[in-house]
Amino acid sequence: MERTKCGTIRREHLEQEVTLKGWVQKRRDLGGLIFIDLRDRSGMVQVVFNPETSKEALQIAEDVRTEYVLEVKGQVVARDEATVNANLGTGEVEIAAESVSVLNKSKTPPFMIEDQSETSEDLRLKYRYLDLRRQEMQETFKMRHATTQSIRQFLNEEEFLEMETPMLTKSTPEGARDYLVPSRVHEGEFYALPQSPQLFKQLLMVSGFEKYYQIARCFRDEDLRADRQPEFTQVDIETSFLSTDEILEMTERMMKRVMKEVKGIDIETPFPRMPYHEAMERFGSDKPDTRYGLELVNISEDVKDSGFKVFNGAVASGGQVSAINVEGQADRFSRKDIDKMTEDVKVYGAKGLAWLKVKEGEFNGPIAKFFSEEEASSLMTKLAAKDGDLLLFVADKTSVVHDSLGALRQKLARELNMIDPNQFNFLWVTDWPLFEYDEEDGRFYAAHHPFTMPAAEDMDKMQTEPENVLAEAYDIVLNGYELGGGSLRIHQKEMQNQMFEVLGFSKEEAQEQFGFLLEALEYGTPPHGGIAFGLDRLVMLLAGRTNLRDTILFPKTASATDLMTNAPGSVSEAQLEELHLKTVSKKEQD
Amino acid sequence: MERTKCGTIRREHLEQEVTLKGWVQKRRDLGGLIFIDLRDRSGMVQVVFNPETSKEALQIAEDVRTEYVLEVKGQVVARDEATVNANLGTGEVEIAAESVSVLNKSKTPPFMIEDQSETSEDLRLKYRYLDLRRQEMQETFKMRHATTQSIRQFLNEEEFLEMETPMLTKSTPEGARDYLVPSRVHEGEFYALPQSPQLFKQLLMVSGFEKYYQIARCFRDEDLRADRQPEFTQVDIETSFLSTDEILEMTERMMKRVMKEVKGIDIETPFPRMPYHEAMERFGSDKPDTRYGLELVNISEDVKDSGFKVFNGAVASGGQVSAINVEGQADRFSRKDIDKMTEDVKVYGAKGLAWLKVKEGEFNGPIAKFFSEEEASSLMTKLAAKDGDLLLFVADKTSVVHDSLGALRQKLARELNMIDPNQFNFLWVTDWPLFEYDEEDGRFYAAHHPFTMPAAEDMDKMQTEPENVLAEAYDIVLNGYELGGGSLRIHQKEMQNQMFEVLGFSKEEAQEQFGFLLEALEYGTPPHGGIAFGLDRLVMLLAGRTNLRDTILFPKTASATDLMTNAPGSVSEAQLEELHLKTVSKKEQD
Repeated sequence: MERTKCGTIRREHLEQEVTLKGWVQKRRDLGGLIFIDLRDRSGMVQVVFNPETSKEALQIAEDVRTEYVLEVKGQVVARDEATVNANLGTGEVEIAAESVSVLNKSKTPPFMIEDQSETSEDLRLKYRYLDLRRQEMQETFKMRHATTQSIRQFLNEEEFLEMETPMLTKSTPEGARDYLVPSRVHEGEFYALPQSPQLFKQLLMVSGFEKYYQIARCFRDEDLRADRQPEFTQVDIETSFLSTDEILEMTERMMKRVMKEVKGIDIETPFPRMPYHEAMERFGSDKPDTRYGLELVNISEDVKDSGFKVFNGAVASGGQVSAINVEGQADRFSRKDIDKMTEDVKVYGAKGLAWLKVKEGEFNGPIAKFFSEEEASSLMTKLAAKDGDLLLFVADKTSVVHDSLGALRQKLARELNMIDPNQFNFLWVTDWPLFEYDEEDGRFYAAHHPFTMPAAEDMDKMQTEPENVLAEAYDIVLNGYELGGGSLRIHQKEMQNQMFEVLGFSKEEAQEQFGFLLEALEYGTPPHGGIAFGLDRLVMLLAGRTNLRDTILFPKTASATDLMTNAPGSVSEAQLEELHLKTVSKKEQD
Repeated sequence: MERTKCGTIRREHLEQEVTLKGWVQKRRDLGGLIFIDLRDRSGMVQVVFNPETSKEALQIAEDVRTEYVLEVKGQVVARDEATVNANLGTGEVEIAAESVSVLNKSKTPPFMIEDQSETSEDLRLKYRYLDLRRQEMQETFKMRHATTQSIRQFLNEEEFLEMETPMLTKSTPEGARDYLVPSRVHEGEFYALPQSPQLFKQLLMVSGFEKYYQIARCFRDEDLRADRQPEFTQVDIETSFLSTDEILEMTERMMKRVMKEVKGIDIETPFPRMPYHEAMERFGSDKPDTRYGLELVNISEDVKDSGFKVFNGAVASGGQVSAINVEGQADRFSRKDIDKMTEDVKVYGAKGLAWLKVKEGEFNGPIAKFFSEEEASSLMTKLAAKDGDLLLFVADKTSVVHDSLGALRQKLARELNMIDPNQFNFLWVTDWPLFEYDEEDGRFYAAHHPFTMPAAEDMDKMQTEPENVLAEAYDIVLNGYELGGGSLRIHQKEMQNQMFEVLGFSKEEAQEQFGFLLEALEYGTPPHGGIAFGLDRLVMLLAGRTNLRDTILFPKTASATDLMTNAPGSVSEAQLEELHLKTVSKKEQD
């Protein structure tokens, strides 16, 4: 008899004979009967073992424990009115067991298979295969599947070709730290695992494939945080002959479809676009969460001549003063609360947090006295301040002002419950600088990567003022997370050489590292560009999770360990010898 | 204006204005006009530059060379009757160029972008991005895309979830050689790249996902041949609660769909099933090509008492004698030809190749004299021999007989043109032995992998006669290639322990290597099984190619080198130091 899925049984199946296979979620004994909640991927249904239906089945059920795997045959019957479970799709019915067999036993699991389990994450990672049985986890990975297929379906219909680029590639010094793979055949040489398929997808454009995508595993050997993993998955897209506008429009249609198919939500397109500079000024972030206000307002002009030294000093030395108006919350925050906020902004290098409260049309607070009536009035207007508002100020170097107020803004929004978890605000951040100058290294780095096209109007500044060159690049932001980014790429050899020059590569270094790209650019490389976005992060946001590990089946800890298999591990001397390697302990190194 | 794809333009578009973007396949100057074949992913169309349409465009076209990237605007016009090109989809039309711009130039490519190019493979691999422009290559990767999507679509409809297992995993001593990835955080420890997601997919069954698939990159650091690559792609499938028959039936439906969608061919299901032993006896191969006859016939019984020492000796010492009847080809093969075949079978360890020709109802040839009339008649019947047939014999150890005649059979079929390239013969090979005994190491190895379930009827022989235990395993064979294989897996801890015992693992070794699996088996592991097959090889067969490298975008050479990027390469001392590693030259090792 064909198997019936537990979670799909309804009143319409009454009196049908079914065969179920699944796991015991719970067993209860009650008045000579045994009730078992049987769970499979589709959900749960209650099975009743009644001596009047089958004594033999009841007897077997007596030995059954949580997480046993059972095969049950029985009839779908209605529950008593009183025992209907409205929280369960199958809550109106139960299965009267006619026979049961134990397909496998289970020891008592180290923790309950329940969403609200209080178990430590380490224990759950060690028994990941059990933790994955939880409904929340099952739903997340079904959603991941749905997201992936939705993206693929869209790209297939747009005539993209799914293509596989190599994992055993060449190490390059730019970018993050590579994971290396020693070669057995080539003594002393190494492959690198890809940080992204960037150059290969560009070469596929050189090959004339025109529209490429890949759901690609990428690797970065960096120190880990909650939203980083050593290996992650990227939806990687590249196109030939399309303009920035065309690439953004296509991406918007893709996201619209994913949101509709996966979440049932209609989102509006086109997405707003915001220049990088504006994002920093208004939100103190290059990936602003636009679901709430609390915007930063630059008041440098208004306070540059004020009597408050901290303010006018910051402006005078090339920094700025910005403020956030926490509307109507003056009474909610005590001086002690504000002291705490001050500690928070200090993490970002701010020397302090100034504040004012508005009461009866006037500023209140320790720094109120520094402002003339005119200055106060101009500030009130600029900040749209009214009675009951709390105003928070940071005066510092521009980057410190942005970072500290940007972080404070997010913290306040969470505390004040200003964030609607069901809202999905997509945003393009555009007009990025092409380069970042590193004071310490005394050199420019590529803000995105060294293959990014400079904006057409800035091309002539490449050699003279690289710091002022904007990139033909765009990031896609969702609810304060960088979902992905892309750019048009350089398709002319001369421009690529200029780029390497600004980055301080000698001709030889450029040739050694990227010779194949420079050569490819000479053989009819089409104009091209693309985008890549983090699938793990997208799924995290769609599933309403906050930890990237919840969206990856077998994630690694902050020390890049798999607690289940204990990877990484030691290997044999013979293996190392074949690879022409020797391990050197830290002690020996020192 | 929207771009039109070159290869799609037909008579029905006459008089339309189009914008084309693509590559110059060829330029010809003729009577003051210039003709350019413009190519994009969709195909090719002829563009005409005529001074009467645009002098300016003509002037630009004069400087255009092969592989330049152009944007052309013009009108679709009909070709003269005389110049219609019936070989080209667009052969009835051409584009009268009104304007043209050069999007990028190209140096003269190191080889012609043509399918029949005689260039060495090394040069083509160095300039892979140019070689991929060839139409044959473009078609192969479009077919690869179509195959992948067809498989995914099928599995999605069957409610499989696509799931991603880790790439940074643990090294295990069984199986092929691992690629290792040194850990920076854990001194002296290594990850391994997966040879297959085998254990992870089994753990997903333990997790209750029931139906898993992944188009997974796998890695084996083995010496390479034409049909092996260091990284390859596997369609990886695992299911819970299904029987062998159900898994095979599902796979057959999937293949039927792929063949229909990708090749437009209806194939018959169910596929024939053949026990391993029968495949070896009849075809001398565990992956027989059943598109042609030339089957092996075991004649040991018929010749064991013959006067020919080579034959009766082989049987007496536990070996066998088998023959192939090359029907009607007696006259085609001279003694010299047969001497050559003898050399061929010697490669497989055979001491010689005996032969007979049938003429006027009698055996002819040097060994004819050894057989009595009765023996000859019985052989004639067994081999269905008739006048004009050539009979070829090998007498040796069973494995040598199979290997040598199996190889000879294939060689003969190719030479005699007996293989229909448009026929696709799928076949299941079943009833595999669970173990292989390695004489040299004096131990059993798992014939498939150590997680394969023994056949139900052989379970009690696990400890007493493991050499006679059959596996619940199956291989899928297409036209003489092993496309993939699978099995039911062990889902009981006791059985898994027995398996490790036969393989000579101590309890501690089993625990150290596979402790997480043994533990998982104690927590309600469902009965499960699956299959995996090589995507690269499937695409190779569908595309009618013979080299696996033609189905991989950026393949590696036999020494595992990427000739384009020059991977693997050297890395910096700093990188090695961070990984606590030192390279040791072969000299130092000796």
